Amino acid sequence: MSTASSSPRRLTRKGQDTRQRIVSAAADLIFEQGLAHTTIEDVRAAADVSSSQLYHYFDDKPALVRAVVDHQADTIVAGQETFDLSSLDGLRAWRDWVIEHQRELNCSGGCPIGSLGSELAETDPEARAQVAEGFKRWEATIQTGLRSMHARGRLTPDTDPDTLALALLAALQGGLLLTQIERDTKPLEAALDTMLDLVARLGGGS
Amino acid sequence: MSTASSSPRRLTRKGQDTRQRIVSAAADLIFEQGLAHTTIEDVRAAADVSSSQLYHYFDDKPALVRAVVDHQADTIVAGQETFDLSSLDGLRAWRDWVIEHQRELNCSGGCPIGSLGSELAETDPEARAQVAEGFKRWEATIQTGLRSMHARGRLTPDTDPDTLALALLAALQGGLLLTQIERDTKPLEAALDTMLDLVARLGGGS
Repeated sequence: MSTASSSPRRLTRKGQDTRQRIVSAAADLIFEQGLAHTTIEDVRAAADVSSSQLYHYFDDKPALVRAVVDHQADTIVAGQETFDLSSLDGLRAWRDWVIEHQRELNCSGGCPIGSLGSELAETDPEARAQVAEGFKRWEATIQTGLRSMHARGRLTPDTDPDTLALALLAALQGGLLLTQIERDTKPLEAALDTMLDLVARLGGGS
Repeated sequence: MSTASSSPRRLTRKGQDTRQRIVSAAADLIFEQGLAHTTIEDVRAAADVSSSQLYHYFDDKPALVRAVVDHQADTIVAGQETFDLSSLDGLRAWRDWVIEHQRELNCSGGCPIGSLGSELAETDPEARAQVAEGFKRWEATIQTGLRSMHARGRLTPDTDPDTLALALLAALQGGLLLTQIERDTKPLEAALDTMLDLVARLGGGS
């Protein structure tokens, strides 16, 4: 792994911009066509950089993939944090956004880090661990919301908000996967609506 | 697609055995290392057949992949049907089996058709549709159990057993994916336990 790719802070502003353009192009291509079908040459062309520029920032495809994982996790966590998950209304607004987003994508691509994690889990242990780290950050944003509901008495005392947060993330992931494969938002709607119904039953109110 | 691969009934007994050996070898390799990392040559060697034998049954890798999808869906549905999903005890026995199976696999591989579906969804529309068909058959086995519970008054009248079945399949898929990526059965346990807790709350009894 290059020093540049592990320490982007040492780059100039222009260098950071170029690096980011490469990572964004790679993220888009991998999301659209999968990791196996995305070559370094595809990324180079899409980012409109030379080979020597690309290899200045990333030693090889695995180094670039690790940067893509971080980029996608950052994007997801930032998006997640725009929703207030400490109320049933906030959870419902999030649910609506997630489903609408899948409609806009015609149900293609699945979850940007879930699909990528699935594709590389058995062949790239370092990237797999990095995807796991991304999921932990995502889970933490949901935990924060549900722990707050629990602390305010809006979930019954015997509810474990951490288990519920992890189950909600799993339901979302499975819903996204089935929605991608079936090209229909119905599985995602069933998964999220069922989980939010449970949250309501656990005393969440509205 | 070859006539042989689309109409295995027309093969001799020995031919069927050879074809099945190829499909099983391909299924195992794809499960262990993913579709992109599995070559026709890997499959030929693992199945201990000649190239001409392999190409007698399958025109190309996509034709073989379609046979693998059907094989994995058949295996999953047959396994699912050994459990009685029309009672909470039966659902719990299934939950225990699924989690124990992941422990035996050291949490690797994920779902045999979910992982494969994720990997090919954006690049092989025909195989994607076939994975979707496999998921529909799987969903139907869960539906049968929950519809029976509902009909026997063991789910409240306002419960929609079909939505619940689809949500349960999504929770399972997401749990399997997170378990694969995190190498820990905790997400799968959280997903299934939360769904079974909901089924119990909906009046399932035990």
